[in-house]
Amino acid sequence: MKKPQFNLSTPYKWPLSGHFSLTTTAVIVIDMQRDFLEDGGYFASMGEDISHAQKAIQPAKHFLETARNLNMMVIHTRESHRTNLDDLNANKFIKSQNQGAPIGSNGPMGRLLVRGEYGSDIIDDLKPLNKETVIDKPGNSAFYATDLDIILKTNRIESLVLLGVTTDVCISSTMRDANDRGFDCLLLEDCCGAATESLHHSVLKSMEREGGIFGCYGQSLDFCQFLSNAVEQTS
Amino acid sequence: MKKPQFNLSTPYKWPLSGHFSLTTTAVIVIDMQRDFLEDGGYFASMGEDISHAQKAIQPAKHFLETARNLNMMVIHTRESHRTNLDDLNANKFIKSQNQGAPIGSNGPMGRLLVRGEYGSDIIDDLKPLNKETVIDKPGNSAFYATDLDIILKTNRIESLVLLGVTTDVCISSTMRDANDRGFDCLLLEDCCGAATESLHHSVLKSMEREGGIFGCYGQSLDFCQFLSNAVEQTS
Amino acid sequence: MKKPQFNLSTPYKWPLSGHFSLTTTAVIVIDMQRDFLEDGGYFASMGEDISHAQKAIQPAKHFLETARNLNMMVIHTRESHRTNLDDLNANKFIKSQNQGAPIGSNGPMGRLLVRGEYGSDIIDDLKPLNKETVIDKPGNSAFYATDLDIILKTNRIESLVLLGVTTDVCISSTMRDANDRGFDCLLLEDCCGAATESLHHSVLKSMEREGGIFGCYGQSLDFCQFLSNAVEQTS
Amino acid sequence: MKKPQFNLSTPYKWPLSGHFSLTTTAVIVIDMQRDFLEDGGYFASMGEDISHAQKAIQPAKHFLETARNLNMMVIHTRESHRTNLDDLNANKFIKSQNQGAPIGSNGPMGRLLVRGEYGSDIIDDLKPLNKETVIDKPGNSAFYATDLDIILKTNRIESLVLLGVTTDVCISSTMRDANDRGFDCLLLEDCCGAATESLHHSVLKSMEREGGIFGCYGQSLDFCQFLSNAVEQTS
Repeated sequence: MKKPQFNLSTPYKWPLSGHFSLTTTAVIVIDMQRDFLEDGGYFASMGEDISHAQKAIQPAKHFLETARNLNMMVIHTRESHRTNLDDLNANKFIKSQNQGAPIGSNGPMGRLLVRGEYGSDIIDDLKPLNKETVIDKPGNSAFYATDLDIILKTNRIESLVLLGVTTDVCISSTMRDANDRGFDCLLLEDCCGAATESLHHSVLKSMEREGGIFGCYGQSLDFCQFLSNAVEQTS
Repeated sequence: MKKPQFNLSTPYKWPLSGHFSLTTTAVIVIDMQRDFLEDGGYFASMGEDISHAQKAIQPAKHFLETARNLNMMVIHTRESHRTNLDDLNANKFIKSQNQGAPIGSNGPMGRLLVRGEYGSDIIDDLKPLNKETVIDKPGNSAFYATDLDIILKTNRIESLVLLGVTTDVCISSTMRDANDRGFDCLLLEDCCGAATESLHHSVLKSMEREGGIFGCYGQSLDFCQFLSNAVEQTS
Repeated sequence: MKKPQFNLSTPYKWPLSGHFSLTTTAVIVIDMQRDFLEDGGYFASMGEDISHAQKAIQPAKHFLETARNLNMMVIHTRESHRTNLDDLNANKFIKSQNQGAPIGSNGPMGRLLVRGEYGSDIIDDLKPLNKETVIDKPGNSAFYATDLDIILKTNRIESLVLLGVTTDVCISSTMRDANDRGFDCLLLEDCCGAATESLHHSVLKSMEREGGIFGCYGQSLDFCQFLSNAVEQTS
Repeated sequence: MKKPQFNLSTPYKWPLSGHFSLTTTAVIVIDMQRDFLEDGGYFASMGEDISHAQKAIQPAKHFLETARNLNMMVIHTRESHRTNLDDLNANKFIKSQNQGAPIGSNGPMGRLLVRGEYGSDIIDDLKPLNKETVIDKPGNSAFYATDLDIILKTNRIESLVLLGVTTDVCISSTMRDANDRGFDCLLLEDCCGAATESLHHSVLKSMEREGGIFGCYGQSLDFCQFLSNAVEQTS
């Protein structure tokens, strides 16, 4: 039997190995928090436009339903800091202060980017299931100062499906670190959002170079279709 | 003015740099959890003797009072796993199973070594203050898959005071990794405990080689005395 | 006396702390190897255009002279693999193969991206001095699987000046990881190059968001001028 | 067919998974350098006794022949520093100085613990083959600031066979970090040496606790016998 491979991704068919398997693939939902997607959150407080990021919510919600139906491993990340801010480096704090949204200060949804606050939690539309891992991370990359790498290794994960916000910051940083670690990354383009359309697309352009230097990207509906077929083929 | 240095540590006066400072020193209290120190916990369930470990509690409690009075940075660690056990590697699980205490199984104080359970929390005598950082760690070393390194760096910490359980496992592993990272480690010998007196002492013996290959050790009362003098000298 | 700060960087004056110091700043020259900058190298063999990258050479050479005159710490990186390719992950190899330039295969300047080969070494114009550290790295980020972090920590470095190739791949990945670790990054824009002008500029655009989310950028001549003034001020 | 498992290890049969395979096992030979094993080297210069360490050489040599005959993956480590000592932390240097053997100073076999020097290279009896990876490491643990983890992952290694010097320092630190990362470690007891017999045995004692908390240990002749049988069984 031919091993299934997703044909509609750019610039290469995914996964590169040619051997797609549900059990070695994990979905990483990045920073779909109120602090990035809702009025009064950290991102909006800095004066950034949240409308492009919000466009990712419905496609992400639909994809997550499919992934959960297939019992795929789903991991959520939250950019957030400890309540005592001991994990917040000086430069990150100064920048947030200069943008008028000091991390740790009070906003309408609680202290900005602080763990345990309403604003730092994931939006209702993408609420994690009890069995799903949620990783709080102090940096842009979900691999920095977290247990993500050990979780992926323990579960023998080899390929990642990435979505969330923002495309050019936390998603790109996480994808780059994942790629260096040998994971084959698929970005679901319509399930990602950024501060501007142009920043979002610049990530895709960079991914097209050198045969897919960081991974490849595709559309969530195409990928859902692929998943359904792949499961039929292998069951 | 002469910079204060602790004279009663073995095999060298601490810190090596000769410049003790409260603001660049952190206290790390390792795994003083019910799971390691109380009947019905993980450690006792494996058939290990908890009496030597328990001897560390009162000295540790007394030292912590001094450290808190001086406003020293205090970090607590807990060896524990996510509720879905996604961060538990297969070998660690098999070993716990073979010892009759499978990680994640139910004990009298909740699921063994699982976060959020009563048994995995820190004992009442050493209960962390709200402002103190508590780090949940899946491995023996507190540096593995955690944010400890970033927290120490962010706070410009250069020297560590280590105590807790067990001397030859989690304390030794953490001290070794800290030492590789350039931190100058002082082990408070009477505030540490192990499965046997002999294992406890073997760590001290190894520390005496090569001029203090992993760090140095001393007694908590001597160190409390030193701290009082150091603060007077510098205030 | 006013502490010197570089005024001509975008989007913020560098360093953010307001305290520039030669001794806490390191220059990182990224991947200025024949394999990326010369005909017959790895990059050209994949069909990528090397002309934009080459534009960075002369400005980089001039800046390095200034940095060396001031005795700044200079670190060079090389993207390269062990001769037995044991550090080359399967996906990276497949991509290079698909682009017609398999890593480890023979090219006119030796095996592509392999340590010790003529092609993987740094170009003559930027030849490292004997005392300068050269880091061989298997990934895009210079922090992945290397001793860069320990070297920076050991030397108490807090700020980085980044240059080299390519802007959107190895420079961006290294800058992102450095930024997560708390380093304040200044990118010398004219000393960097990419596969296309547009990819190069997309990095700068992303850096302008959120108050300089990954760091700031400036021109090398402006920065050389700043350095001269800074040294005069503090000497 | 029954999967082979090594029966003569303490305290458990290895590997724990029950599935020994040559292709997922790597041999790690730790720090068998002139600097640790010969007169005039770093270790002897500190006044440490090298005779116990030297006892490991012949068993190690014999085992390595068997491993190479079976085409097992063999990795060598060297504790060593860059020629500019940029990766040497202050405390490690001070300790070496206090012991009368400053790292980087001249000895009869070249600069102590410095890469490229005769003394820092591996002894003739265990000379690495060209195809074998050699990892230079600045710390005690071979995982710290090196590419060991990526090499093991890239080659899908799950179990490690450890030998070398010294048992309680670099071997123990490496085994602990390997164990935290999920590798199943077998220490070849007679192929390891330490500053004293007692330190050597204390490592074995600690390994016996908690069902083999860091791994298990056995004798090299027994293991060679097992390997021969295992290969016959599976071929």
